[in-house]
Amino acid sequence: MPTRIETDSMGPIEVPADRYWGAQTQRSVQHFAIGVPRFVWTRPVIRALGLLKLAAVRANGDLGELPLQLVSLIAPAAEEVAEGRLDEHFPLVVFQTGSGTQSNMNANEVIANRAIERAGGVLGSKQPVHPNDHVNRGQSSNDTFPTAMHIAVVEQLHERLFPAVEALRHTLDVKAKTYEHLVKTGRTHLQDATPITLGQEIGAWVSQLDFGLQAVRQSLGGLYDLAIGGTAVGTGLNAHPHFGERTAWHLEQLTGHPFRSAPDKFFALAAHDALVQCSAALRTLAGGLMKMANDVRWLASGPRCGIGELRIPENEPGSSIMPGKVNPTQCEALTMVCVQVFGNDAAVAFAGTQGNFQLNVYKPVMVHNVLESITLLADACESFDRHCAQGLAPNEPVIDEHLERNLMLVTALNRHIGYDRAAQIAKAAHAHGLTLREAAIESGFVSPEDYDRWIDPLAMTRPG
Amino acid sequence: MPTRIETDSMGPIEVPADRYWGAQTQRSVQHFAIGVPRFVWTRPVIRALGLLKLAAVRANGDLGELPLQLVSLIAPAAEEVAEGRLDEHFPLVVFQTGSGTQSNMNANEVIANRAIERAGGVLGSKQPVHPNDHVNRGQSSNDTFPTAMHIAVVEQLHERLFPAVEALRHTLDVKAKTYEHLVKTGRTHLQDATPITLGQEIGAWVSQLDFGLQAVRQSLGGLYDLAIGGTAVGTGLNAHPHFGERTAWHLEQLTGHPFRSAPDKFFALAAHDALVQCSAALRTLAGGLMKMANDVRWLASGPRCGIGELRIPENEPGSSIMPGKVNPTQCEALTMVCVQVFGNDAAVAFAGTQGNFQLNVYKPVMVHNVLESITLLADACESFDRHCAQGLAPNEPVIDEHLERNLMLVTALNRHIGYDRAAQIAKAAHAHGLTLREAAIESGFVSPEDYDRWIDPLAMTRPG
Amino acid sequence: MPTRIETDSMGPIEVPADRYWGAQTQRSVQHFAIGVPRFVWTRPVIRALGLLKLAAVRANGDLGELPLQLVSLIAPAAEEVAEGRLDEHFPLVVFQTGSGTQSNMNANEVIANRAIERAGGVLGSKQPVHPNDHVNRGQSSNDTFPTAMHIAVVEQLHERLFPAVEALRHTLDVKAKTYEHLVKTGRTHLQDATPITLGQEIGAWVSQLDFGLQAVRQSLGGLYDLAIGGTAVGTGLNAHPHFGERTAWHLEQLTGHPFRSAPDKFFALAAHDALVQCSAALRTLAGGLMKMANDVRWLASGPRCGIGELRIPENEPGSSIMPGKVNPTQCEALTMVCVQVFGNDAAVAFAGTQGNFQLNVYKPVMVHNVLESITLLADACESFDRHCAQGLAPNEPVIDEHLERNLMLVTALNRHIGYDRAAQIAKAAHAHGLTLREAAIESGFVSPEDYDRWIDPLAMTRPG
Amino acid sequence: MPTRIETDSMGPIEVPADRYWGAQTQRSVQHFAIGVPRFVWTRPVIRALGLLKLAAVRANGDLGELPLQLVSLIAPAAEEVAEGRLDEHFPLVVFQTGSGTQSNMNANEVIANRAIERAGGVLGSKQPVHPNDHVNRGQSSNDTFPTAMHIAVVEQLHERLFPAVEALRHTLDVKAKTYEHLVKTGRTHLQDATPITLGQEIGAWVSQLDFGLQAVRQSLGGLYDLAIGGTAVGTGLNAHPHFGERTAWHLEQLTGHPFRSAPDKFFALAAHDALVQCSAALRTLAGGLMKMANDVRWLASGPRCGIGELRIPENEPGSSIMPGKVNPTQCEALTMVCVQVFGNDAAVAFAGTQGNFQLNVYKPVMVHNVLESITLLADACESFDRHCAQGLAPNEPVIDEHLERNLMLVTALNRHIGYDRAAQIAKAAHAHGLTLREAAIESGFVSPEDYDRWIDPLAMTRPG
Repeated sequence: MPTRIETDSMGPIEVPADRYWGAQTQRSVQHFAIGVPRFVWTRPVIRALGLLKLAAVRANGDLGELPLQLVSLIAPAAEEVAEGRLDEHFPLVVFQTGSGTQSNMNANEVIANRAIERAGGVLGSKQPVHPNDHVNRGQSSNDTFPTAMHIAVVEQLHERLFPAVEALRHTLDVKAKTYEHLVKTGRTHLQDATPITLGQEIGAWVSQLDFGLQAVRQSLGGLYDLAIGGTAVGTGLNAHPHFGERTAWHLEQLTGHPFRSAPDKFFALAAHDALVQCSAALRTLAGGLMKMANDVRWLASGPRCGIGELRIPENEPGSSIMPGKVNPTQCEALTMVCVQVFGNDAAVAFAGTQGNFQLNVYKPVMVHNVLESITLLADACESFDRHCAQGLAPNEPVIDEHLERNLMLVTALNRHIGYDRAAQIAKAAHAHGLTLREAAIESGFVSPEDYDRWIDPLAMTRPG
Repeated sequence: MPTRIETDSMGPIEVPADRYWGAQTQRSVQHFAIGVPRFVWTRPVIRALGLLKLAAVRANGDLGELPLQLVSLIAPAAEEVAEGRLDEHFPLVVFQTGSGTQSNMNANEVIANRAIERAGGVLGSKQPVHPNDHVNRGQSSNDTFPTAMHIAVVEQLHERLFPAVEALRHTLDVKAKTYEHLVKTGRTHLQDATPITLGQEIGAWVSQLDFGLQAVRQSLGGLYDLAIGGTAVGTGLNAHPHFGERTAWHLEQLTGHPFRSAPDKFFALAAHDALVQCSAALRTLAGGLMKMANDVRWLASGPRCGIGELRIPENEPGSSIMPGKVNPTQCEALTMVCVQVFGNDAAVAFAGTQGNFQLNVYKPVMVHNVLESITLLADACESFDRHCAQGLAPNEPVIDEHLERNLMLVTALNRHIGYDRAAQIAKAAHAHGLTLREAAIESGFVSPEDYDRWIDPLAMTRPG
Repeated sequence: MPTRIETDSMGPIEVPADRYWGAQTQRSVQHFAIGVPRFVWTRPVIRALGLLKLAAVRANGDLGELPLQLVSLIAPAAEEVAEGRLDEHFPLVVFQTGSGTQSNMNANEVIANRAIERAGGVLGSKQPVHPNDHVNRGQSSNDTFPTAMHIAVVEQLHERLFPAVEALRHTLDVKAKTYEHLVKTGRTHLQDATPITLGQEIGAWVSQLDFGLQAVRQSLGGLYDLAIGGTAVGTGLNAHPHFGERTAWHLEQLTGHPFRSAPDKFFALAAHDALVQCSAALRTLAGGLMKMANDVRWLASGPRCGIGELRIPENEPGSSIMPGKVNPTQCEALTMVCVQVFGNDAAVAFAGTQGNFQLNVYKPVMVHNVLESITLLADACESFDRHCAQGLAPNEPVIDEHLERNLMLVTALNRHIGYDRAAQIAKAAHAHGLTLREAAIESGFVSPEDYDRWIDPLAMTRPG
Repeated sequence: MPTRIETDSMGPIEVPADRYWGAQTQRSVQHFAIGVPRFVWTRPVIRALGLLKLAAVRANGDLGELPLQLVSLIAPAAEEVAEGRLDEHFPLVVFQTGSGTQSNMNANEVIANRAIERAGGVLGSKQPVHPNDHVNRGQSSNDTFPTAMHIAVVEQLHERLFPAVEALRHTLDVKAKTYEHLVKTGRTHLQDATPITLGQEIGAWVSQLDFGLQAVRQSLGGLYDLAIGGTAVGTGLNAHPHFGERTAWHLEQLTGHPFRSAPDKFFALAAHDALVQCSAALRTLAGGLMKMANDVRWLASGPRCGIGELRIPENEPGSSIMPGKVNPTQCEALTMVCVQVFGNDAAVAFAGTQGNFQLNVYKPVMVHNVLESITLLADACESFDRHCAQGLAPNEPVIDEHLERNLMLVTALNRHIGYDRAAQIAKAAHAHGLTLREAAIESGFVSPEDYDRWIDPLAMTRPG
C-alpha cells in the first residue's frame, strides 16, 4: 500500500496515499482497533461533522476570522463531507478518545487535504489550509463533537424516527376507526373482563405511540442547543465572541432545524443531559411499542389453543420442524429491538453521569447508542407496519364466541342488583358451567327481560 | 386480639376489632407478607387515596349518582384518610395485586366503616354505607389506583422535590456569583486545561440542575392526566359519563394542581408512561447531581495529595482508624442516592413495558419506586445543601498555585504563533520542568513582552 | 428528652441519655436525615456488626492485643448486639458515609458504652472501654463494614433465600412428577406446537430455579472472603498480622459458615465484586421466577376467553367493580418483586464500578440492595408457594380439548411423508377448519390406519 | 441481478442466482430490513452454525438416521460454512424471528444447495439434499439456534476474551511485582490515607481482573450444556434418542470444548440463563476494568494540577485546540467499552426474563449482545494493554513529595498514644500547615526519636 508522510505535534507518520486523512487520524487507526468494523462511524455522524465544519468556516468568514479565500477553499471540501462523497476517508470507531477529538481531527484533516488538493497544494503540507489553525478555527473537539452529536441525532429523529413511527401510528389509527364498533372481550390481569371494542383496544396503542413520540419531541428542545462557541472548556477561548451563534445560524440554514448557541457552554461540554433525555424518551417509546407488539402476538396466539382473536400476515414458514406453523415474527423482531433500546439507554444514562469537571469523556458511546436506537426503532417500525400492522384483521368468529362466554358482562348488573349479588351470579355460572344468562335467571335476582335489557355488550363499551 | 367478622364475595373473615378495614384488606394482609414492614404504603399514597375518594364522592353527589345523605357520611371519612388520621388502618404493602385492587378496597373499606361508625351503624354491616356500591361508586381499582398514583407523585414533586432541589440550586447559584472572577485551572480528560473561573465551574452545576428540574417539570403534563372515569377497562362502564371530569375538577380544587380527566382512558389503565417519563427525568436529575457531587469531592480531594482546590465542611470524624481524617461524606450519601434512583428507574421502566391488553399490573411497584426516588432525592439535596454546599469555599492558595503551573495557558498563543509552535512550547516546558513563560521565551517564538500581554488567565475566561 | 454529653475528635455533643450510642453516631443522625425511617439498618446488618465485633475482640484477646479483662467486658456487649437486644441503639440509615464508617462507629460506641455500663463506669467516659482503641482494635471501617456486609448477606442467603426457594422448588417438583403423563399442547412463539406433558412443562420451571439457586450458591465463594485484617487501606496497619485470619476463624465458629480472611485485602476494600456477582445471580434467579410466574398466569388465563389450562387458588375477590373475578395476584406480586430485584441489581452493579484507589464508597447502598432483594425474593417465594403453587391444578377438559385441536401433531408425519407434504396437510386443515386427521386423510398422503398409528400425542412427548 | 426460483411451504420466490441461500432466507431478507448492515451475523455465529450442522450430520450418520451418501454430501458443505468460505451466503440480521429460525434455515439452505451443487444437482431442487428433511434432520431451530449460541460464545470466550484479559493481567502483575516496594500515599474517600506500595495498588487491579475472569469461567458450566436433541419443544420429537449426546460428542471433537447434551431440554429452549449469567460475569469483569482504568487516569491526572503519580504513554495529540496536551485516551476507550457492556447486559437480562411456555423468542438479541460484549472487551483490553498498561510508570518525585506531606502517617501513632491524641496532632498539622513531624513533636505526646522510630512509611505497608 503506497503511503505518504503526514505530521502532527508528535511527529511524522505514514498514511495511505489514497486517503485524505492525516497524522492524528492515522494514530487513532493504529491505537484504537476496538470493534472494527461494526463501530466505524456511519453517515449521520460524518454528515454532521461536515455540516458543522461548513457552518463554522462560513461563520469565521462572516466574522472576519478567516480570509474569504480560505473560506472558499474549505467550504466546498466540508460540503463534500456533508454530502457523503468522502465517507471512505473516515475510518475511526466509536471507542476512541472520549471527547471525539480524533474524529474532529479526522474531519479537519480530510477537509484540509481535500481543500489543499483543490488548491493544487501538496497533501499533508498544511499549506495553504491548516487543519487546526483554519478548519478548526475557533473550535475545539470539546465543542465541535457534542455539536455534531446534536446535529446527527436531530436529523435522524426527523428523517428516520418520526416518519417511521408516524406511519405505523397511522396504520393503527385507521384500524382503530375501522373496528370502532367491533365488540370483544376486554382483559385485565389476563382474565376476562368487561367488553371493549377492537377500535378502543387498538386506539390505546395509538395513544401510547403518541405519548412516546411526544416525549421524544420534548427532548428536541435540549438537542437544539449547541456547544459550538465554547471551545476547550466552555469559555470560548480563541473563538470570536459571536462565533457560536453565527455557526448555529448557519446550521439552521443548512438543516432547517432551529439550532441555537447553548446559553451555558460549560454545561454543554461537561454533560449531555439532552442526549440522556432523548434516550429516555426513546426508551419510553420502545416500552409502548413492546406493549403493542405483545398484545398483537397474544391476541393472535393459537391458532387453535390460544386467544386467536386477531389474524396477522403469514410472511414465512414458522418452523424448520413443525410444518404449517406461522409465527408472529414481526412482533418478535420489534420486541427484540425494544430490549436493545433499553440496553442502549442504560449505557447512555450511565455514561451521562460520568463527567468530570469541564468535560464528559463518554461522548462517542453516548451518541452511538442514541443513533443506533433511532435506526433500529425506525427500521423495526417500518418493518412491523408493512409486514404486520397493515395486515392485522379480526378473527370475528373467535371474538364473538369469547364475548358470548364472558362472565364479566355481569358487571352491568351492579347498578341494578348490587356488587354482592352480581358476584354470586358470576360465581355460580363459573362453578356450574352455565352461561351468565342462565345463572342470572336461576339466581332469582334478575328476570329474563331485565337481563336482556341490562346486558348489552356494545352499550357496555360506550356508557352514557 | 379481639376480632369482628367482615365479609366479602368470598365469605366471612375475622379482622382486628380495632381496625376499620374489612375482609379484602384482611385477605391481603394474610396473603401478601412480602417486604413487611418496609414496603407498607406511606403517607403520600394513603393521602392520595383519601383525596380521590373525597373527590369521587363529591362528584357522585354532584351528578346525582349518590344521595346527598350518603355523600355527607362518606366525605368526612375520606377527608380523615386524606389528612392522615387513619394511617394505621392501612396495613398493606406494595407487593400485592398488580392493579392495587387491595389498596383501593382498603380505602373503600376503611371509609365505609368509618362512615358507618359515624352514622351509628355496625362495623362490617355495609349499612348504610357499602364499600363497593357507595364508596367505590363509578370506580374500579383499575382507574382509581393509577389516579392515586398520579396524585401522590404530583404532590410529592411539588412538596418535596422541587423545594429541595431549588434550595440547593440557589445555594450554588449564589456561590457561582460570589466566585465569578476567581480564575482557576480548567480540566478536561482530568488533565490541566485552559482557565475558567470558579463561578463558571459552579454555574455549570446550576445549569445542570436546571435542566434536570425542567425535565421533571415536563413530565408533569402526563401526570396531570387522570385515569378516573375509565372504571374496569377504560370504557367507564357503571360510571356517570361526566364522572371522570367532575372528579378531576374536585381534585384540582382540593390540591391546587391542574388535574384533568385523561383523554384516552384505555391508555391510562394499560400503560403508565407518564410515570416512566417522570422516573426517567428523575434519573436525569440524579445524573446531574452525581456529576456535581463528584466534582465537589474531587476538587476537595487531599488535603495534601489531591486536587485540594475546594474546602468542604468537616461534619464528623472521617475514619475510625485514621485520626484527623475528614471525608466528603455528603457527596457519598448523595451519590449513593443517585445510584439508588438509577436502580429504581430501571425497575419502573421495566415494569412499564409489561402491560397486557387493558391493564398494566405493575402499578404498585412503579409508583413505589418513583415516590422513593423523589423522597431520597429531596432528602439528599436538603442534606447536601445544608451540610456541604452552603459551606463550600475555595482554597485560594492551591487554586493560585495550580493556575500558575498550568501549561495549557499556552492555548492563548495559538492565535499569535499557530497551534504547532504553541505545542512545541508546551512540550518543552513539560519535558524540562520549565514554567510556560520560560519555555515560551526560550523557544524564540514569543518575546517576554508578548507573553505577558497574550497570557492573561482572567481574560482567557471571558474572550471577546 | 434528657441528654448526656459524648465526645469525639471533633468535640462534645449531646446524645439522648437513654441511648448507648456516642458522638459519631449522633453526628450522623443529625447530618444524614435521608430516607428515614425506611432506610434505617435492620436486623441482618446490626447482627453482622455484633458478630464481627465479638469475633474481633476474641481474636484480639487470643493474640494478646487486648487484655482479657477488656475482652470479657466487650464480648458480652457485642453478643447483645448480635442477638438483637440493642437494636434500638442503631438509628443510622443507609445513606451516610460511603464506607459505613458511621455504622461501624455506632457499633463501637454502643458496645463500648454497654461494656462501660456493665463495668460500672460512666457512659461516654471511654473508661475503661474506648470505642476506637479497644472495640475497634486492629480494625477500620474500611475492613469491618465490608466484612459485616458479607456476613449479613451470607446469613440471609442461608436463612431466608435458600429455604424459601427450595420449598417452592419442591412443591413444583412434586407437581411435575404428579403430572408427568398428562399430555397437553406445547407452545412456541405463543403458537400451538407439538405436545408435551404438564410434568415436562413444570419440570422446566424446576430446572430454572435450580439453575438460579446454583448461580447464587456459586457467588458464596467470594462472599466467604472477608476484608477484616486489612484495616484502613488493605495493609493491615495497626492490626496484628494474624488478626484477619483469627477473626475469620471466630466468625466461622459463630455462624457455621466457612469464612476466611481474604487473600488480597486491597481488592477486598476497593471493590465488592462478590456482592455484584451475588446480585447478578439473584437477578438470574428472579428472571427464572418471572418466567415461571408468567407461564402460570397465562396458563390460568380466562377463565373462558384465555388459555385456561391451569387452575390457581382463589384467594381474594379480584375486582372492586367486576363481581366474581379472580386474578393471578400471587403471580403479580412475585413478578413485581422480580422487577424490583432487577432495579436493585442495577444499583448494585453501577455502584460496584465506582470505586477509586483503595476504597469503594458505595458500600452501604450495595449491601442494602442485595439484602432487600434477598428478603423480597424469600418472602415472595414463600407467599407464592403457599398461596399459589401448592394449589396449582390442571384443568383437564380444556387441556384435552386443546390437544385434540392442535394442528402441530402433524410434525410426527415428517419422518413418514416429509416436511413439505406435512406442511400441506396442516395448512389445509387450518384453511378449511378441518381436524388434522380429516385433512391428512383427504390429502391422500396418509391412510386412516397410518394416521392413527403415527399420531400418538403421548408417544410424541417421549420419543425413543 | 440474475435470479433463480426457490420454494418453501409458502411457495416459490426469486433468489439471487449467485447465492446458495433458499426461499426462507430470501423471505427473511425481504421482511427484516432492520439494522442492515450493522446487525448482519458475523463469523462466530456462522461458524457455530456450520460446526453444529457438521456435528449433526455426522451424528445422524452414526445413528443410522441418514444414509452415509447423504452424510458425505452434507458434511463438506457444513465444513465450508464452519471455515468461513461461505460467509457471503449469510445475509440475515439479528432482528428476525426470535428463535433464530431463519438463520437456522439459512444454514440448512446454503448447506443443502452447496451439497446439491457438489453432487451435480440443480440448486433449489432439494434433490438429492433437502434442507429440512436432511440437513435439519432430527433438529428444530428451537434446539439448533441455542446450541449455536453456546458454541459461538464458548469459542469467543476462549479465543478472544481470555487471552486478551490475561495478557493485560500479566502486564499488570509484572508491574505490581516491579513496584512492590515503591511506597506511596494510599487514598480512601479520595482523601489522603495511610501508605501503600504501588505494587499493592496495582495488585488489587490484578486481583479484580482475576475475580472477573473467574466469574466468566464459572459461567462456562452452563454454556457447555447444549439444547440439541430437544427439537421443537424439548421432547426431542423426530430426533433419534441419542442424537443430542452424539452431536454434543462430535462438537467436543471439533472444538475441544467439553460440550454435553443438556439434561433438561425443556429448560434449554425456554430460558437462556447460562447466557444471562455469562453476560452478568462480563459485566462484573467490565466493572473491574472500569475501576482500574479510572484509577489509572486519576493517578495520571495533571500533569501539574492533578495527582500526577503515574505516567502513561503519549500516543497522540490530546487536543485540537490545546497544544501539547496529552490525554488518557486508552482509559477513555476502555471505560466507554465498559458502559457499553453494561448496556448490553441490561438487554440480555431483560430478554432473558421474557420467555413464554416452551420458548424464549429473544434468542438472537441475547447472543448478539453477549458476543458484542466479548469482542469489545477483548479488543479494548488488547488495546489498553499495548498502548497504556505496558507503558505505565511511576512519577517518583511526585509520589515522594505526596508521601512526605501525607498527614495520615499519623495512624501509626494510634498504638502508641491512642486515637484521640493522634487525631489532635493531625488536626494541628492541617490547621497550621505544619508537617506531621513538627506537629507531633509540638504536641508533646511524641519525642523526635519516637517519631522517627514509629513513623516508617515502608513498614506501614507491611505490618507484622
